[in-house]
This record gives sequence, C-alpha cells and structure tokens, in this order.
Amino acid sequence: MNDENDAPVAVIGLGLMGQALAGTFLKAGHPTTVWNRTTSKAGRLVAAGARLAPTVGDALRAGSVTIICLTDYQAVHELLGATDAELDGTTLINLTSGDSTQAREAARWAEQRGARYLDGAIMAIPSVIGTAEAVILHSGPQPDFEAHESTLAALGTVTYLGADHGLASLYDVAGLAMMWSVLNAWLQGTALLRTAGVDAATYAPFAQQIAAGVAGWLPGYAEQIDSGSYPAEVSALETDARAMAHLIEESEAVGVNAELPRLIKAMADRSIAAGHGGEQYPVLIEEFARPRND
Amino acid sequence: MNDENDAPVAVIGLGLMGQALAGTFLKAGHPTTVWNRTTSKAGRLVAAGARLAPTVGDALRAGSVTIICLTDYQAVHELLGATDAELDGTTLINLTSGDSTQAREAARWAEQRGARYLDGAIMAIPSVIGTAEAVILHSGPQPDFEAHESTLAALGTVTYLGADHGLASLYDVAGLAMMWSVLNAWLQGTALLRTAGVDAATYAPFAQQIAAGVAGWLPGYAEQIDSGSYPAEVSALETDARAMAHLIEESEAVGVNAELPRLIKAMADRSIAAGHGGEQYPVLIEEFARPRND
Repeated sequence: MNDENDAPVAVIGLGLMGQALAGTFLKAGHPTTVWNRTTSKAGRLVAAGARLAPTVGDALRAGSVTIICLTDYQAVHELLGATDAELDGTTLINLTSGDSTQAREAARWAEQRGARYLDGAIMAIPSVIGTAEAVILHSGPQPDFEAHESTLAALGTVTYLGADHGLASLYDVAGLAMMWSVLNAWLQGTALLRTAGVDAATYAPFAQQIAAGVAGWLPGYAEQIDSGSYPAEVSALETDARAMAHLIEESEAVGVNAELPRLIKAMADRSIAAGHGGEQYPVLIEEFARPRND
Repeated sequence: MNDENDAPVAVIGLGLMGQALAGTFLKAGHPTTVWNRTTSKAGRLVAAGARLAPTVGDALRAGSVTIICLTDYQAVHELLGATDAELDGTTLINLTSGDSTQAREAARWAEQRGARYLDGAIMAIPSVIGTAEAVILHSGPQPDFEAHESTLAALGTVTYLGADHGLASLYDVAGLAMMWSVLNAWLQGTALLRTAGVDAATYAPFAQQIAAGVAGWLPGYAEQIDSGSYPAEVSALETDARAMAHLIEESEAVGVNAELPRLIKAMADRSIAAGHGGEQYPVLIEEFARPRND
C-alpha cells in the first residue's frame, strides 16, 4: 500500500490543529497543499515542503482529499460558499468543531454541489496528531471513508462511526462529557480526602481503579437500556439514593462543594418519584433523555 | 497461617449485608457467633453452624474480633451504649454506613471504653462478599488492622487506608461519586447518541474506552494539585470551556437533559472568572474544595 502514501492531500485552515495535520501528512510523505486566509501561518509548512495554494479553488483541486479545519462551521460556509471553486468531484473531510445539525447541513450543502463529504471530530490536542493517541472520528458515506482511510491513518487512530454525518459530533461531545465527568468526580473525591490530609497523588490510583472498574460495567448495563427493562440485579435505585444522601452530607460536613453530589441525587430522586425506585441505575436514561429547564 | 482461619469472630447486625458477612466467615471455617435484635434473622446462619449469642455482651466476648453492621451509627450507639457489656479489651470493626465525623466520634467513644476500634466501609453488594470483587476499606490504628487482616481477608479485597478513622467513609463516598459520575456521563452520551438511532450497546465500548483512558491521567494530574501549579501542558481551561459550550448546545439541540453539561461548564466558568482560564483542568480543585450554596 505504499502507493497510497503518495496520495496528494490538501489542508484548508492552518490554526494550531491545521498546522499539525498538514505537518503530519508531510512527514508521512504525502504531497501536501495548504491554504490559509493569513498566508504567514503557512511559513513553517512551506519550509518543510508544503505547497501554498494561491486560492481555495487551487487547494481543492490539488488533493485527492481536502481536509478542512477552521474555527467554526460559519467560517466553512463563508469560505466555500464565497469561492468560485468547483466542489464537484472533490472529497471534503471537515474536521471543524461543530454540532451534529451543522454537520448534517454542511453535508447536504456540499453534496448538492457534487462533493463527497465526510464529517469528523478530533479527540486530541495538536501535539499528539500523528500518534495512536490522536483519535479522529469520521461519519458519512462508508465508501468515501474507505477510499481515504489509509491516507487518514497517518493522522492517528482513525475511526468510522456510520453514515449519519452527525455521528462524529455526537460521539465527540459524548466522549468529552465522560472526560470531564471522570475528572470532576476525581476532583470531588480529592477535595473530600484533602480535608483529612490525604494528598491528591495518594487518592488518584484509587479513583483510577474505580473509574476503570465501573467503565467495565457499561456494556452489561447497556443491555438493560436497549431492552427497556431494568431489574435490580445489583442494587435498587432507592438504595443508591440513600448512599447519595451520605455523599451530600459528607461533602457539606467537611466543607467542600456539594453541587455535583446534589445533581447526582436530584436525577435519581426524579426517577424514584416517577416510580422507578425499585429498578436499577440505567433506568435513569429516561431522565437523561428528556430536557429539563428550571 | 491456617490457625488464623480458626479465629473466632462475632457479627452484630444481620441485615442482608451482615448475613453475607457471617455466612462468609462460616464458610471460611471461622467459629462464628451472631447477634441481631430480631433473632429470626439468624435462622439460616444457625442452621449453617453459627452460634446465636443470647446478648450483645455475649457476642462481644465470643470473637477475637467483632464485626458491627447496623443500619446507622445511631443504632450502634444505642446498642453498645445501652448494653452492660464490657467493651474493654474487645476489638470492634464497624462496617456500618456513616460519615467521617460519625466514624471518628465512634472511635473516640469506643476507645474511651477500652476497645480497639477500626472503622470500615463495604464497597460491594451482599452477593459478592467473599470474592475479590468485594472491596472493604478500613481505617484506624494499623496494628489493630494487621492483627485481624488474615481473618478479614475471607470477606474480599481488604484494604487499609490510614490511622484517621474517618478515611474509610471518605474514600467510600469519593468512590461512589466516581461510580455515579461515570454512569451519568455514560447516560448523557447514550441519550445523545440515541437521538441518532445509535443503541446503548453500540456506544458503551466507546464510553468505556474514554473513561478508562481518562482515569489513566489522574496520577499525573494529581501532581499538579499537590504542587499547586497548573501549567496548561495539554489544554487551557478557557479552551475546554468552549468545548463545554458545544456539549450544552448539542444536548439542547437534540432535546436531551443538559443539567450535567451545564454544571460542568458552570464549574469551569467560575474558575475562569477567578483568573484561571490559562491554566489546566486540575486547577478546578479550588472550586471543588469550597462550598457554594445558592
């Protein structure tokens, strides 16, 4: 598959992330064309062998695939909508951050102009692009992903999620919610333990073990959600709620923040009030699945 | 060390958990004495070879160590305070659920009466007692833990945390906060993905991988907290906050609950308002470490 390392690529948008993407393609041996509104951002890449496209249209014609990495979807529309460039026959992979609605709209817009379009999300910081640690999610037509998978693989751990263009954004924010939740729960625990003189380094391995252990339950718990049946095989929600009260009381008693504990209990209390106290934790999906504004 | 399996033990309190503890000691070969306010709860244990103590005082004298597993600390004080039983010379291991203040008070109370006292917390459900999955935390004087460690080991994975009697309760609620947070973040993601027709079982392995991956960062992040210095080596909090806004917008746009996303961002926003926008995530410990009532 050496031939595929010769596939020409273009990168539009040279912020920190765009520069990392283009630089990684260059290192992997791809003829790489770059474009940015401010051409000065291309300096280091050109010195490393990239070709600076004079226009967006030129960049779109230069690569077998064009990676777009701009500030937001509005910038994408302004750039591609204003240009006279022909999108027909191009393949666009839009790694710009946005939501699922924007991704689906951008796909429709690009496809109407004859482009093949994949939407993506980068779950990584610029410095790890080009390593396995850089997880990059893609959604859109599977053949279009497969046609460029070996090229994209230079960037990191490249994953295909499904045909719905909104999936990359949805998985991205879902993963971020998990990331911040693990960090916040660890901070809550660290704050609690520090009141007893336990330092963060001492508590961290314990928190790590719990998080990894609970993560292992998820596939089994998922079966309950998909079947819509929540027998209390491990524990009933009303039992959990009593332990949640302990968490709140302990947090308040030692003088740390109790907002996260209170939210945890509020969600469970609502589910119990809706008649699910004798069921198991995943029944809370019914609360998470509906908006609440108060 | 076979001799130690012959160590006589007593279990006071025969709810579901107390019954599991006593039954496990019996299976491991320990002469086991039990006591419960309602003696009928002892039926199955007595049939399995346990001795039913006629009084609490008798139970306290029967074991080289006495496990207490009651509804709450008030029940412990009412029982041990009301009895004429001599606590002097006994070793009590109190696995009753409570908070760190109650644990420290109970320790002081018991020690004033000449007892050795360890406080513990069971991070398991009754059905797994006796397996490695049952994590049981202990805090109090280390020699007292070590004197009975091999006996306690029959119950599961037995851990010693430190001399402060409040530690078992604090680690317990901290661990529970992690457990519920991983589950809630997974439910948030599942709710988001289900709006695109992705079932829970499809999303679960992705969530599992993120949770376990982020858990691996905790020891490194702990160093920042212990040093009180939060350079943005990976990402600055103000960059994170923009992605948090995406999570909220996405949740609201697809019509799922956004309370957890809003709490995540509110904590970060407060830290940014306090001047920490250029620092890294663990700086949020300053928000988690102080109460907020509004």
